[in-house]
Amino acid sequence: MASYATRSREELRIEAKKMIARYGELMQQGLKLDMSRGKPSKLQLDLVSDMLTVLTDPAECIIDGEDARNYGNLAGLKCAREYWADVLGCKPEQTFVGGNASLHLMHSLISWAYTHGLKESPRPWCNEKRVKFLCPSPGYDRHFRITESFGFELVTVPMTPYGPDMDIVEELVQDPLVKGIWCVPKYSNPQGYTYSDITVNRFANLKPAAPDFVIMWDNAYCVHEFDGEFEPFPDIISLCEAAGKPNMVYEFASTSKITFPGAGISVMASSVENIAHMTKLISAQTISYDKINQLRHVKYLKDKAHTIELMKRHATIMGPKFEMVLKMLRAQLTNKGIAHWHHPKGGYFVCVAAMPGTAKRTLELCKRCGVVLTPAGATYPYGVDPHDSMIRIAPSLPPIEELEKAMNVFCTSLRLAALERYLGMPLIED
Amino acid sequence: MASYATRSREELRIEAKKMIARYGELMQQGLKLDMSRGKPSKLQLDLVSDMLTVLTDPAECIIDGEDARNYGNLAGLKCAREYWADVLGCKPEQTFVGGNASLHLMHSLISWAYTHGLKESPRPWCNEKRVKFLCPSPGYDRHFRITESFGFELVTVPMTPYGPDMDIVEELVQDPLVKGIWCVPKYSNPQGYTYSDITVNRFANLKPAAPDFVIMWDNAYCVHEFDGEFEPFPDIISLCEAAGKPNMVYEFASTSKITFPGAGISVMASSVENIAHMTKLISAQTISYDKINQLRHVKYLKDKAHTIELMKRHATIMGPKFEMVLKMLRAQLTNKGIAHWHHPKGGYFVCVAAMPGTAKRTLELCKRCGVVLTPAGATYPYGVDPHDSMIRIAPSLPPIEELEKAMNVFCTSLRLAALERYLGMPLIED
Repeated sequence: MASYATRSREELRIEAKKMIARYGELMQQGLKLDMSRGKPSKLQLDLVSDMLTVLTDPAECIIDGEDARNYGNLAGLKCAREYWADVLGCKPEQTFVGGNASLHLMHSLISWAYTHGLKESPRPWCNEKRVKFLCPSPGYDRHFRITESFGFELVTVPMTPYGPDMDIVEELVQDPLVKGIWCVPKYSNPQGYTYSDITVNRFANLKPAAPDFVIMWDNAYCVHEFDGEFEPFPDIISLCEAAGKPNMVYEFASTSKITFPGAGISVMASSVENIAHMTKLISAQTISYDKINQLRHVKYLKDKAHTIELMKRHATIMGPKFEMVLKMLRAQLTNKGIAHWHHPKGGYFVCVAAMPGTAKRTLELCKRCGVVLTPAGATYPYGVDPHDSMIRIAPSLPPIEELEKAMNVFCTSLRLAALERYLGMPLIED
Repeated sequence: MASYATRSREELRIEAKKMIARYGELMQQGLKLDMSRGKPSKLQLDLVSDMLTVLTDPAECIIDGEDARNYGNLAGLKCAREYWADVLGCKPEQTFVGGNASLHLMHSLISWAYTHGLKESPRPWCNEKRVKFLCPSPGYDRHFRITESFGFELVTVPMTPYGPDMDIVEELVQDPLVKGIWCVPKYSNPQGYTYSDITVNRFANLKPAAPDFVIMWDNAYCVHEFDGEFEPFPDIISLCEAAGKPNMVYEFASTSKITFPGAGISVMASSVENIAHMTKLISAQTISYDKINQLRHVKYLKDKAHTIELMKRHATIMGPKFEMVLKMLRAQLTNKGIAHWHHPKGGYFVCVAAMPGTAKRTLELCKRCGVVLTPAGATYPYGVDPHDSMIRIAPSLPPIEELEKAMNVFCTSLRLAALERYLGMPLIED
């Protein structure tokens, strides 16, 4: 099958006719499928059911001389801090174990920076005339939204298969208005790229003009392989420390895609000094986080090695879904010059770069067929993809049979959107 | 026993000698007791042990067509919103069910007001030149600290047995810089006063100059009787609505002193419009709160009536402790003109008003004997009690035998501090 670009108008018309017919058939299936968010599936939730019974004896709530059922210990249970230090490869005293959502910790950090300032801030960010924040894109919409909600200027940084384009990052941080950057270093959302060692080292060795520049290191998918063995990752905290910038990075993670989404535990890790600074600020916000749930998680997940074993069981559910998505993309979109994508080995997404100018239209056609995806543009600052090209597919939630149907709709819609561009006419009327 | 004020210097010397000897004996007991915070005791935690086993079947996690184990539903499970509406006497759509701490919700509200503004705000509070906040005192130190941490000017409002002095409140809210007030309407922290119906009505009918004036209605002890039957309380939300100011109040509560402190669920209740406004803001902060724990609580607590039954069981533990405290106060401090106190029927504290100028010294003497209480002044803005008089006693944590010892230390210390003032000399050397 030749690229659409090299086909004659007549050949494209024949292809269009085929696709219109196929789209009509798909319409009649009356689908109602959601691939918009990285929600684990019911099978995955059932997989970790023992979470509900792992802590039933009140006597077990007393641990390291502390009763997990009572107020206190803001930075988290000793065993929970040890657990996260093991997973992230840092030290327990560099961790702060939070509540059910790492996003909440990230938001708190930015909010505190805005209202009170970070450890190295000369003043709270609300007293700065302008604040710029770097957003490697495509990226995670909820990250961008946090910094947008505080009125920061979002600056798009292009992504490469090795992470954000560091030449550009190194140049941009010369601007003292640039106060930070969002990063998902492993299986980036949405492309599934893992930052190379060179990229990670260049991050640790950044010399930003702003003294309180902060790397928001969201290690959301640190143990989330669905294809192959666990891939070790470097400890950004010790790398920043070695580079003489121990307070430049905050790392985040959670168990949301390990145990129960939104009912797990989260962590913020940084230098001991930064953790002390934030703990003092957070002490005005809350007495302590849910330590019973922390204990439940430590009892269930035990340690890094045991967590990785559990992730292999998640992989038996997630792997086939990603295989299906990639198989359908290969079968229906290869060699047409209208889309390309990366084959990730972990994380929660496949990101399809459609022919420029066709992403929105593709999603519109999907939606009419009952298939909802992440809105086009969502992976860029302000929700605007300048090329109208990137589409995020989240295969985790639907059962695999539905996923096949949904991908059929997606590929057909994408081909129709491309054909409309080539032929310069709408193929599917309202 | 006559008041110290009417005794001769010789009589006071004899009393002092007696107290010094008693203090010496108490010193030798080597006590180490903490009555500083309103922490429930181990007996109370054990009382609610069934919380750990109330939700063990994954099938039960699917409720009202929703899987509590997955992301989503920011405002909380339907059944959790219904539960809180029942307890507070408002409507489910007027509730937002949060995470493990109502303090966190209160902090979020003030932080959002500061960074983004409330529903009625002409601008975020960080863009106001000055913000004043009313603090009925004595009050809850953590409330005051939230508003202090944002640089607001804290304005002390005197408390009366019927609630804050409303003549003064009504006058102060004429100042457009005054943006809100902290309230604990039932069994106020620390005095245990319940606002009268007249006070509550005057609150609902406030006509503040600031359009975004907010009543922070922390109903922390709404079902927390330890002496006698449950006392019904008015629904501040419908009262404000009836008075034409539906967006003026936010009410808060949590299960921290019903089930597990810091591992329960919390609620924020207000007008539907306010809840919509806050839900939108909070959607940038988190995807959803821990709905499994919400479900666990609804299954365990069931409804208001069942919760009140549970509180009666807490009362069998709490009641005798308060009785002991009050008995000791009566036995050792009555009719000496050096202290008075209110006999609360619920809540977590007894507040002793010592002779002006003796609170700090009393706590110092207690500490030397191994008994720690809430720091003197903590119940006032900026931690400064202008009369150095108010002392908060939190009897919940220690077992009753220890409480008796601690109260012996407390009463002796208070008498010594008063005698030092009358005699004009230190009685206990460093």
